[in-house]
Amino acid sequence: MADKVTIAVDALGGDAGAPVVLAGVASALKADSDIEVILCGPEDVVVPFAENHERCIAQVTTEEIAMDEHPAQAVRKKKDSSIVVGCRLVKEEKAQGFFSAGSTGACLTAATLVTGRIKGVARPALATVIPSPIKPAVMCDVGANADCKPSYLLQFGQMASIYAEEVLNIKNPRVALLNIGEEETKGSQLALEAHALLKENLPNFVGNAEGRDLLAGTFDVFVTDGFTGNVCLKTLEGSMKVLLGTVKDLFMSSFKTKLAGLAVKNNISELKNTISADTYGGAPLLGVKGACLVGHGSSNEEAIKNGVLMTAKTVRLDVSGKIEQAVSKTQVSE
Amino acid sequence: MADKVTIAVDALGGDAGAPVVLAGVASALKADSDIEVILCGPEDVVVPFAENHERCIAQVTTEEIAMDEHPAQAVRKKKDSSIVVGCRLVKEEKAQGFFSAGSTGACLTAATLVTGRIKGVARPALATVIPSPIKPAVMCDVGANADCKPSYLLQFGQMASIYAEEVLNIKNPRVALLNIGEEETKGSQLALEAHALLKENLPNFVGNAEGRDLLAGTFDVFVTDGFTGNVCLKTLEGSMKVLLGTVKDLFMSSFKTKLAGLAVKNNISELKNTISADTYGGAPLLGVKGACLVGHGSSNEEAIKNGVLMTAKTVRLDVSGKIEQAVSKTQVSE
Repeated sequence: MADKVTIAVDALGGDAGAPVVLAGVASALKADSDIEVILCGPEDVVVPFAENHERCIAQVTTEEIAMDEHPAQAVRKKKDSSIVVGCRLVKEEKAQGFFSAGSTGACLTAATLVTGRIKGVARPALATVIPSPIKPAVMCDVGANADCKPSYLLQFGQMASIYAEEVLNIKNPRVALLNIGEEETKGSQLALEAHALLKENLPNFVGNAEGRDLLAGTFDVFVTDGFTGNVCLKTLEGSMKVLLGTVKDLFMSSFKTKLAGLAVKNNISELKNTISADTYGGAPLLGVKGACLVGHGSSNEEAIKNGVLMTAKTVRLDVSGKIEQAVSKTQVSE
Repeated sequence: MADKVTIAVDALGGDAGAPVVLAGVASALKADSDIEVILCGPEDVVVPFAENHERCIAQVTTEEIAMDEHPAQAVRKKKDSSIVVGCRLVKEEKAQGFFSAGSTGACLTAATLVTGRIKGVARPALATVIPSPIKPAVMCDVGANADCKPSYLLQFGQMASIYAEEVLNIKNPRVALLNIGEEETKGSQLALEAHALLKENLPNFVGNAEGRDLLAGTFDVFVTDGFTGNVCLKTLEGSMKVLLGTVKDLFMSSFKTKLAGLAVKNNISELKNTISADTYGGAPLLGVKGACLVGHGSSNEEAIKNGVLMTAKTVRLDVSGKIEQAVSKTQVSE
């Protein structure tokens, strides 16, 4: 039997709207009988659902943060939004984790300002599992911090390494710095200084990686600033989408190719699933208290379910406690 | 009849060695009877070739810059290397352009220090044609400048826009800034300031783009710093390679899928060609006098041929003259 955990869930996140989130929450509750969910959202959404589901408590909220709102302003103004309330539940220890498929920026801001940073962490960062067809890896930061100092990157490496080891079960993850060349002497000023810090302070740091390594299965953790990480992640997502679309068009081009397409249809769907972000349920915000995961806006029921389960897993493995321990050992001046 | 141009070519560049370069040069000479080539390299390589080919002059050099040498040190020390000599020929106006499939770093350094910058250009930058299956686009900088000021990015936009318009024949190219969100308020400090400068000074600037736009055909030019651009370009190359490899494996998995693979073999090769960098022959170094193109280390005969022809095209279209004109109109303080 697993530890009992309570996860606050944003009923409003996701492009597909509340019904998909509710379906995902229902699946998660069914899949893990030691999870309790506090569902945050409008009364007419959360109350009927909670009445019909065991281990689900309704937390009525009256405000909503839209995907395109300015995150910091929205979090400051909308104190009774599902995102702010969800993060407050973690702060007040009524829940141990928070999951939302809503605005990533608002979740980052609320988790940092409302839930609060882990002691010793300079900047919480967004990590993501890169769904490589060869072997998954973690990249961090993918968008929380557009401008970084070298010491932040060291902490990103420490935090993502713990996430990879604990949650993804990768023993002694090989941590690499995303850079523009393999040699130690390559890179921007930030990359050069971060390389030196990582080399000195992170035992499982193995050196520089390049963009072409992201899907290659060569490394387990990619450390980078939030600007490069975000651009890269979207480049990966975009290129896989365009390429799969092109392969699909190719099968539609003639009768012969259509027949060929039928023969590999299952294999192609399998590949699509492997490289889909949905499998990992969301991007963990590392460095905040408790656990906070943000799902893709396009999350389907399966992705929401996996997101809730992954948040519970992150809580049970005490990822934030382990991060606190790791960063306390290496105090680097900014 | 096209204008007569003389292109200096590095006989030593490319992983496959001189024979592939020579074959590519022979094809280029055959394809365009108004090109003259000055072939730079060891006596036993360049002299016999020049004797056997019209419009080819041998320029014997005694040194070689290896792919893994420190670019700046190598260029300073090896004054009689094929790369330094090739760039000097352009400086001395014995050739109008230089093409190499050798060390990108050494070519950048030699072209900047030996050939020289165009008046008014703060930092020459490396551009590349992104071979999207939907529509090609230009990205700049992809690795010459790891650390950038906003004013550099404005010039990258001006230079790449001219390259896209003149060489790729894209009328009024839509220039976008690679960033982490579409909104003007998103991004790193560098991106925010560059956005403002581009908006003010480049009439065909259309706003921010994200990583997922790179292959989508939505924009014609992507402006970015050399760190982000390099990581992104290698991410694109790597993901296409891994994905095509995975699709290939998929066809090999059973008798049924092998048959299906045979049916679409030609279509897959066609796709491979479309998204291959070889079609565009090399990455132009924008902002130096004359024309300088650097081919991929893995260039085959076709890529070398296209590289030489593209260098000649860049000369004939007076890209560097047009760049000088464009940057002289907007003097931005650094």
